[in-house]
Amino acid sequence: MMIYAALRLGIETAVMDPDPECPCAGLAGRFLTADLGDAEAIRRLAGEVDIVTYEIEHVNTDALREIAEAGTAVLPRPESLAVIQDKREQRAHLSGQGLPGPRWGEVDGPQDPGIDAFGFPSVQKLRRGGYDGRGVAVLRDATSERLDGPSLLEAKVDVEQELSVVCVRDRFGHTDAYPVARMEFDPEANICTRVCAPADVPESVAARARDVALRTVAALDLVGTAAVELFLTHAGEILVNEVAPRPHNSGHLTIDAADTSQFEQHLRAVCGLPLGSTRQHSPAVMVNLLAEPGAAGKPVMTGYARAMAVPGLSLHLYGKNRVKSRRKMGHATVIAEDLERARQLADQAAGALRIHGTHGAEESE
Amino acid sequence: MMIYAALRLGIETAVMDPDPECPCAGLAGRFLTADLGDAEAIRRLAGEVDIVTYEIEHVNTDALREIAEAGTAVLPRPESLAVIQDKREQRAHLSGQGLPGPRWGEVDGPQDPGIDAFGFPSVQKLRRGGYDGRGVAVLRDATSERLDGPSLLEAKVDVEQELSVVCVRDRFGHTDAYPVARMEFDPEANICTRVCAPADVPESVAARARDVALRTVAALDLVGTAAVELFLTHAGEILVNEVAPRPHNSGHLTIDAADTSQFEQHLRAVCGLPLGSTRQHSPAVMVNLLAEPGAAGKPVMTGYARAMAVPGLSLHLYGKNRVKSRRKMGHATVIAEDLERARQLADQAAGALRIHGTHGAEESE
Repeated sequence: MMIYAALRLGIETAVMDPDPECPCAGLAGRFLTADLGDAEAIRRLAGEVDIVTYEIEHVNTDALREIAEAGTAVLPRPESLAVIQDKREQRAHLSGQGLPGPRWGEVDGPQDPGIDAFGFPSVQKLRRGGYDGRGVAVLRDATSERLDGPSLLEAKVDVEQELSVVCVRDRFGHTDAYPVARMEFDPEANICTRVCAPADVPESVAARARDVALRTVAALDLVGTAAVELFLTHAGEILVNEVAPRPHNSGHLTIDAADTSQFEQHLRAVCGLPLGSTRQHSPAVMVNLLAEPGAAGKPVMTGYARAMAVPGLSLHLYGKNRVKSRRKMGHATVIAEDLERARQLADQAAGALRIHGTHGAEESE
Repeated sequence: MMIYAALRLGIETAVMDPDPECPCAGLAGRFLTADLGDAEAIRRLAGEVDIVTYEIEHVNTDALREIAEAGTAVLPRPESLAVIQDKREQRAHLSGQGLPGPRWGEVDGPQDPGIDAFGFPSVQKLRRGGYDGRGVAVLRDATSERLDGPSLLEAKVDVEQELSVVCVRDRFGHTDAYPVARMEFDPEANICTRVCAPADVPESVAARARDVALRTVAALDLVGTAAVELFLTHAGEILVNEVAPRPHNSGHLTIDAADTSQFEQHLRAVCGLPLGSTRQHSPAVMVNLLAEPGAAGKPVMTGYARAMAVPGLSLHLYGKNRVKSRRKMGHATVIAEDLERARQLADQAAGALRIHGTHGAEESE
């Protein structure tokens, strides 16, 4: 999605990804197959471009630091990424800057007596490597299964809604934000299934969420698009959950519902261009399109034409050539005159369109 | 722009173009370098795909007929294209169906006494091969320079505004249209410089324009996106100028300002999918970005960051790797709260961004 924006803007791209069959391989100007931890490959990439950015947090930060010192612009800055990659560091840094969050602590591993001392229910998050619900465990009581590794521990928050504010910050420190979005999760898989924006929260809550988010991206000295995930508690508090220093699933609806997409904003920011307008022109609901449970092989869709009949729908398939059980294969955004209508229509589309695989797909129905 | 839509929708593409370095060569799933008149290449293309469509009128219609008869879906149908390709046939067909147009006649060539008999001022249009202002001559009087070839002759119309209605028609005859757009031309080069939509014309004029346009695409049995260019005369008449059976410059603003872009609509229609919503969510003005007069070589831009600072701007560069004098290198669309503001901002962007070439660009300033 970022390459589409780059093509339109006349920005040439070179992309590095471990999968030579990844969707962007055919779209990038140049393509380098390499693991994101591969320092030598990162040095090679730096030799080909003016600016390096990344769309995933699990990158070799030391190599990014090295190329930045050698003169390549690396944005967001490796220092910011290093803080975010370690959830304990991220939380400590944000707390230190006065940003609201849950009560927290740190533990060395599952046997650490600090877990019991901290109290339950808590949320254990591995300091490094978590992604899309992995590396996170809810500890209801002392018997709950714990994760193995140095972890951040947070008091379980009494969440009313999970909100996200997609922010943009340029190289000179100017910040802006899209309207506050509400994220809805599949409680079992802990995967975001639906994003609604502007979130149907009181004006004052939206204003506080925006303020906290903008202060958060400034506190981390981020450049580019960044999503600040927030908890709105039943008591009405706004707490920072975590930060994604890149275009984020909660901002995908900006492609179809805002003046400038989060992907174009990221490119504008890292390239030193003026930020675009963050106005959202229509209420919108985005649904993630996941492969069916147990699906494998090449993707096979059913209900495609029925989904395409949904008014106001924009379908975004990612061109992944393999399905896996519940793999994110695309998303669909519906814009409508109000959020409730958009939500109904988005659910209708998501209900119609099923992504199976050539193996195991049909059987799972 | 159509390939971007196809990628999102999961539609695989094979593209045929005479220029192996054309912008879509790197984006299409498969790419075939061939002249659009090459019957053998068209047969080869048909062997690779389920549906053949085209984005330019100058295609080998006989070859399209042949592959259609052999079972490939060719849309719009070759019969429709054959009528449109010949401006005399197009006019005769539309007149025959009761669609309003200027008084017309036909002549064999520049010496035909029918030109004088028809009267002046008139517009001589070569029956075949005209494009972007080429193949058209305004004959002010008997001394005006005439074109060489069989031609359609039309009475010069007292035009107040040139309007365009971008229509969509599916395989089953369902039609719809985007809001009426106003086209503005460079009087010297006869190139469209600016498109504004919804056009600031009275409701009743817009309704008549829409009605004429929808009847026009039905009369030609078109499938896909088609632009019906109309004259609004000082007397308040709506006359059909001509029809482009494909996504059209006057519909480019639908990418940023409508629920569904004209490119996605074209794909939906030719693929037998339901049409998308034609609602325009924001007033919009599009400006074409032409290379500077006399420019040559590779493109070099100036004023890029100043243009990008224009609020509500979406830049669409086409990735052409060579400039020519006044070649269309891209377009920019501005959406704003009203049309007047969008127009000001679009002009500001177009005034800032200059596309020169590595040869001859700087000198021409």
